[in-house]
Amino acid sequence: MSRVYLDWNATAPLRPEAREAMSEAFDVIGNPSSVHAEGRAAKMLLERSREEIAEALGASRADIVFTSGSTEAAALALEGQGLACAGVEHDCVRAWCEETLAADESGRVTVPDPARATLQLANSETGVIQDLPQGLAVSDMTQGFGKIPLAFDWMGVKAGFVSAHKLGGPRGIGALVLAAGEDRPARLRGGGQEQGRRAGTENLAAIAGFAAAARAAQSDLAAGVAERFAEMRDHLLRRLEDHDGNTMFPGRESRRLPQTLSILTPGWKGETQVMQMDLAGFAVSAGSACSSGKVRSSGVLRAMGVAEADAGCALRVSFGRTTTPEELDRFAEAWLSARARWQSKKGR
Amino acid sequence: MSRVYLDWNATAPLRPEAREAMSEAFDVIGNPSSVHAEGRAAKMLLERSREEIAEALGASRADIVFTSGSTEAAALALEGQGLACAGVEHDCVRAWCEETLAADESGRVTVPDPARATLQLANSETGVIQDLPQGLAVSDMTQGFGKIPLAFDWMGVKAGFVSAHKLGGPRGIGALVLAAGEDRPARLRGGGQEQGRRAGTENLAAIAGFAAAARAAQSDLAAGVAERFAEMRDHLLRRLEDHDGNTMFPGRESRRLPQTLSILTPGWKGETQVMQMDLAGFAVSAGSACSSGKVRSSGVLRAMGVAEADAGCALRVSFGRTTTPEELDRFAEAWLSARARWQSKKGR
Repeated sequence: MSRVYLDWNATAPLRPEAREAMSEAFDVIGNPSSVHAEGRAAKMLLERSREEIAEALGASRADIVFTSGSTEAAALALEGQGLACAGVEHDCVRAWCEETLAADESGRVTVPDPARATLQLANSETGVIQDLPQGLAVSDMTQGFGKIPLAFDWMGVKAGFVSAHKLGGPRGIGALVLAAGEDRPARLRGGGQEQGRRAGTENLAAIAGFAAAARAAQSDLAAGVAERFAEMRDHLLRRLEDHDGNTMFPGRESRRLPQTLSILTPGWKGETQVMQMDLAGFAVSAGSACSSGKVRSSGVLRAMGVAEADAGCALRVSFGRTTTPEELDRFAEAWLSARARWQSKKGR
Repeated sequence: MSRVYLDWNATAPLRPEAREAMSEAFDVIGNPSSVHAEGRAAKMLLERSREEIAEALGASRADIVFTSGSTEAAALALEGQGLACAGVEHDCVRAWCEETLAADESGRVTVPDPARATLQLANSETGVIQDLPQGLAVSDMTQGFGKIPLAFDWMGVKAGFVSAHKLGGPRGIGALVLAAGEDRPARLRGGGQEQGRRAGTENLAAIAGFAAAARAAQSDLAAGVAERFAEMRDHLLRRLEDHDGNTMFPGRESRRLPQTLSILTPGWKGETQVMQMDLAGFAVSAGSACSSGKVRSSGVLRAMGVAEADAGCALRVSFGRTTTPEELDRFAEAWLSARARWQSKKGR
């Protein structure tokens, strides 16, 4: 039986539209900074892609600054700002912020001073979506973009950032989104690219792939993919639910990304579950992929008040475009068998 | 007649081997930081690519840290080091250094204190190759890698950096090369990737494309491409040579990249030449592509003692793998006609 990939929040398979756009862009040989015809053709593709991404983000009044991904965009947005954040943020945000904001049990964060804070749009582990307050300084929109409808221009946020590979674009490309009047000093210097905000030859093919993926994600949303995914997730949740209450679903009371489910079974290590599911043919994760090799409990769940020991017992299922209800059913069966085995061992 | 691209030092067309490797890598859906089978397959491809690039660089004893390109690698290598550099360096180096070293007329730089200095391997505009002194702190090897034989382990340089797209790999990927014992604090934070030196999901397909391009460039070098290119360049130089001495070739007395020719005709603006050649079907450049839109004289040539006014009158021809002797002949004819027109106008 073929394997089932349920780790889309770590990285999503490349969309065919993005692959096609990259393949075409590989033939655009000029450097967008060159003045000859080849350079001008490259510049046109660059700016058309930028407009398409702005359109998908609902950010026509904002500036899009291309970066190598969300981690770089986060550094560009946050370094030196001294903003407050909560423990549910990704490490690439926490690296530059003061962790003084609290999340409640449902994963929601209250922001007393939005102008001095950063808050994610959606969490990678639980999928919990935040209500972003007006005037928020910075928002990590990486996990929300392409999965839920978004309109940056209407959010009242001063700066946001996104990544292509979470919505089926290529890896290695992302963007900082700056509302009118916002700016940041360049961290990469020595070239006038990106209006002087980010030096370096533009990653043209990846940018074209990003634009194609963003467009495709928007048309999936318009066709109702979020509703379909939410039904699939809720069906999965109901199948996994243990009426003894041993298994919990952090964030289940909150508005969440439709294709993410966090599953917490106290006492049953997440890492063990990942390995058992891997052997059974399913790629899932115990949390964010970014802490390579480190077996540690989820900082996101601890920030939501889950005890240290229990926070190490979570499993994340995240799916996407090609996932079928049958695949989630197969996962449910495999996981329920594994839980039954674990429970019977525990009982001995 | 089809256009002739002679601006390979700005960016080189993607090699078919790199395109193929990227296409295959697009099917490797895992995140190298994930522990499941898909993640492990991604990690294997990542590390195999790293080894291939180290091999091509002759850097088996060094650490390869992948970055989004040379501009990022330069910042990682140089920020906060307070190193000395010469005016012939790329802007992405000059941004972080003190410009206290001098170049002579032939473009060569003498380095009194190598441990406190950075020096490029080869210049993008003139092609001049430097003799890197033992113990040099940092070298920008971007324009040399893939064009001349290189063995980092034997160079006595503590850190170097390279970019994929200058040798026919994809844009958006490069590397910092660190000799044993060297390290740099991470500029991108919030993930354990690249041994904690550079956070962010690895740009796997681009890395695989980089490795394939580096391997292909090495095998071209082994097959004698540098000698063939040097003959083509010398033939071009002889055709363009004006025995009244009005046209000069900066760096011609120095050891140079085999496929780069700088052509300086005092009084005839480089930007004008670029536009005339563009209309005639040739993509060439007046200098580094990075100062988009800015019409200014070459900092590289000024650093070599060329007068401000004359430094604005240079044209760079740089070619590569697919360039034919006939294309260079066609360029020579077009350029010689344009020069004759300019001279007759000037004479009026």
